Amino acid sequence: MFIFKQIGIIRSPHIEADNTPIQPVYAEKFSAEIEIFPDFVEGLKDIEGFSHIYLLYFFHRVISFKLIVKPFLEDVEHGIFATRASLRPNPIGMSIVRLIKRNGNILHVCGADMLNDTPLLDIKPYIEFFDKIDATKNGWMDRIDKEKAKKIGSRNRE
Amino acid sequence: MFIFKQIGIIRSPHIEADNTPIQPVYAEKFSAEIEIFPDFVEGLKDIEGFSHIYLLYFFHRVISFKLIVKPFLEDVEHGIFATRASLRPNPIGMSIVRLIKRNGNILHVCGADMLNDTPLLDIKPYIEFFDKIDATKNGWMDRIDKEKAKKIGSRNRE
Repeated sequence: MFIFKQIGIIRSPHIEADNTPIQPVYAEKFSAEIEIFPDFVEGLKDIEGFSHIYLLYFFHRVISFKLIVKPFLEDVEHGIFATRASLRPNPIGMSIVRLIKRNGNILHVCGADMLNDTPLLDIKPYIEFFDKIDATKNGWMDRIDKEKAKKIGSRNRE
Repeated sequence: MFIFKQIGIIRSPHIEADNTPIQPVYAEKFSAEIEIFPDFVEGLKDIEGFSHIYLLYFFHRVISFKLIVKPFLEDVEHGIFATRASLRPNPIGMSIVRLIKRNGNILHVCGADMLNDTPLLDIKPYIEFFDKIDATKNGWMDRIDKEKAKKIGSRNRE
């Protein structure tokens, strides 16, 4: 068992899970404010240089997990580890968001696909040289129609 | 406080932290076996379709954190959240590795940059449409000499 602490809170415009975009790519028009708690603010030094950051957070409304799920984008069952669904054995969410600006302990980001009041666990910088992978095979996602996915993934809020 | 459980274990060839590559991009020649514990194996269904996966894991040798660190690749201090260093408030590691094959509850991967016996917390598929971000600004990393970084990042094991 591993114990993690909350380092901040994500204030997003999404109140209901059913209306929340499922990935940042479907949530470009939604911004969020990330409040970093005072004990951890010093760790933000130089974050402004990065255009994109990973947010790792706790899916705070998830109370159980499933090993087999139907993802939002396809009516076919897959293993939870072959999806980004939230009902994971460890409910850790990950979103790559665009960093717009920093005001002290507040980060303003675009691409908010998480619920309001989501507890923040970690921030990591997106670094092209480490994280931009070319020529990947993307499993069942490779056969998904991108336009149809956009409607589903944005929850028709685009 | 959030409690997470171990879902598997990563067997890598790296025994000493000082000799362990700092990112998968510097560790292409190092493979690892990821053993998923029986309770969670069903969640691997269809993972084989993905060429790359995120591993989220616990930095099990980290016993404290620092908010300001000098990263391996530069002799300049940055906030921990502007680096990928392990001394984080929540010691969650993230590596994007290449999935070579699956044998039952064992995943064979390349790009091992974590210590042997690292506890696994989560696996997520790398999905180009979500995760490959174009035209990013990469902060202090943008001024790092890539060849010099390769020597440092691989710990001269390339």
